[in-house]
Amino acid sequence: MKTTSEERLAIGIDFGGTTIKCAVVGDGKIVRRGEIIDTKTCGDADAIINALTNEVQRLKSPGVCAVGAGLPGFVDSINGVVHELSNVPGWKNVPLRYLLRERTEMTVAIENDANAMTYAEWKFGAGRNHMNVVCVTLGTGVGGGLILNGELYRGSQLGAGELGQMSIDFRGVPGHYGNLGALEKYVGNMQIAERAQKLYAAAGRAATASECTPAALAGAANGGDAIARGLWRDIGTEIGAALVNVLWLLNPDAIVIGGGIANAGALLFESIRQTVETRTSPVFHGHLDIVPAELGNDAGIIGSATIALDLNKRL
Amino acid sequence: MKTTSEERLAIGIDFGGTTIKCAVVGDGKIVRRGEIIDTKTCGDADAIINALTNEVQRLKSPGVCAVGAGLPGFVDSINGVVHELSNVPGWKNVPLRYLLRERTEMTVAIENDANAMTYAEWKFGAGRNHMNVVCVTLGTGVGGGLILNGELYRGSQLGAGELGQMSIDFRGVPGHYGNLGALEKYVGNMQIAERAQKLYAAAGRAATASECTPAALAGAANGGDAIARGLWRDIGTEIGAALVNVLWLLNPDAIVIGGGIANAGALLFESIRQTVETRTSPVFHGHLDIVPAELGNDAGIIGSATIALDLNKRL
Repeated sequence: MKTTSEERLAIGIDFGGTTIKCAVVGDGKIVRRGEIIDTKTCGDADAIINALTNEVQRLKSPGVCAVGAGLPGFVDSINGVVHELSNVPGWKNVPLRYLLRERTEMTVAIENDANAMTYAEWKFGAGRNHMNVVCVTLGTGVGGGLILNGELYRGSQLGAGELGQMSIDFRGVPGHYGNLGALEKYVGNMQIAERAQKLYAAAGRAATASECTPAALAGAANGGDAIARGLWRDIGTEIGAALVNVLWLLNPDAIVIGGGIANAGALLFESIRQTVETRTSPVFHGHLDIVPAELGNDAGIIGSATIALDLNKRL
Repeated sequence: MKTTSEERLAIGIDFGGTTIKCAVVGDGKIVRRGEIIDTKTCGDADAIINALTNEVQRLKSPGVCAVGAGLPGFVDSINGVVHELSNVPGWKNVPLRYLLRERTEMTVAIENDANAMTYAEWKFGAGRNHMNVVCVTLGTGVGGGLILNGELYRGSQLGAGELGQMSIDFRGVPGHYGNLGALEKYVGNMQIAERAQKLYAAAGRAATASECTPAALAGAANGGDAIARGLWRDIGTEIGAALVNVLWLLNPDAIVIGGGIANAGALLFESIRQTVETRTSPVFHGHLDIVPAELGNDAGIIGSATIALDLNKRL
């Protein structure tokens, strides 16, 4: 499939556990958004793929030459198979690339969602102009992706970039896989809420669940609440400690931090930066950018569309 | 410089804090060894470079087209400058590649010694036939190197692969750079000796320093000594914990373990493997080879010669 100057648009799909969002993307920007599909009510894998195909066909327009999907789970981007999705039942070894290609007659790329987000931030967002970029996403889970030597690095079994499973304490709290000290078990959204409730209780102040969400805690910290401020500093130290290990191993030029709790802002970033600067040598932190992600919720759509577009150029 | 079929040999230099060893290398094998230079008595950087040049000229013979040097320190392999050497004073920003090239009239490559060792093990040793290989060297210090997507990965400031500085406990023992929990501070040779002496003392058995070297402790463990066996298991857990973090991040297909304490053998490797298997998902350990290095003390010479030979092919 030869690219012409007209073929500069792709449809990006951000496949989430709650909603599936599609849009036409060109040059890193959303050109037109599709209807949102409700993942939970849509039905089984077949029903979802049908709904997805319809939406792609509806968005298809002159210049659109490829489709990219970012999915939350174990995705074989080389062979085009979705092995398994987190929080979406019924997806086992689905040859999604083949199915979408057959029905849409366009170049199709499928990718892990954290990789899609990483690709977008590297090409158009906070990681642009860098050769080696580490992205970390902070939310209910903690994930990540790697750009090494100017390419998406996937690892031998396509599992690379699992920053949330990395340990900060080899005798610490067990993670999902018996991995004691898994970062996710310290700084995932639910863990942050639990820690805040315990800290407030210990200080004799009952706090409701809604006062202990990351957003509420960020607000409290910015308003001067000492407990919230201390908690964000601790969280920054823990995230920083995991990043210190990434730096010693990979010596990247940028770390891009995205996801909900990245919005805690200055206090969190200061604590992360301080941890990194006091635990690495200047070779590793002197030229390093630690920056918030820039593309927000659109990163997945932009990244998967761009991966598909770049794949189409090489075909 | 065009390569002919005759140009298939290179001189490798393994630059150590105690000795400098040279040899002619072809196809991953040592063809002819040079005289050993005594690093400490040879003199300043100029004197060492003179001695090195003489040895290279003496080894130069038909088919030899390149010279590679692996050095223990901060080496800018791109620009050919040795910024600083560990344990060898007087080497500050030495343009070693230029100097050697001018005097020997051959292609010259200089590289960090852990990277040279990694390259050799990947091309000809325990990491061959793999795309993504992590090498770790265990000795007085703990170092490492990375082959990612079939290439030596150096990182943005050429500092990548510092496995010994990675932390296993973010509140642990401080490393050289304020990096709490640095692996090297748990499993470096001196730390192992100290730990053994403490364990024996606590058990009411005085142990001499010579009974607490890694070699002596390996012998004791193989002879059934419970304290030595327990210590090796703990060391394996700690090395394994650092490797678990490397696996989650890079998902390699092989981990090659070299250096003195790797000789502790089965007990150490069992403990490392068990740690890795109980703290990662099968995607990360199911296809993973954890293997001892194969090239021993020659890895540095073979690796640096081969890097130079491969560079010469591309020129």
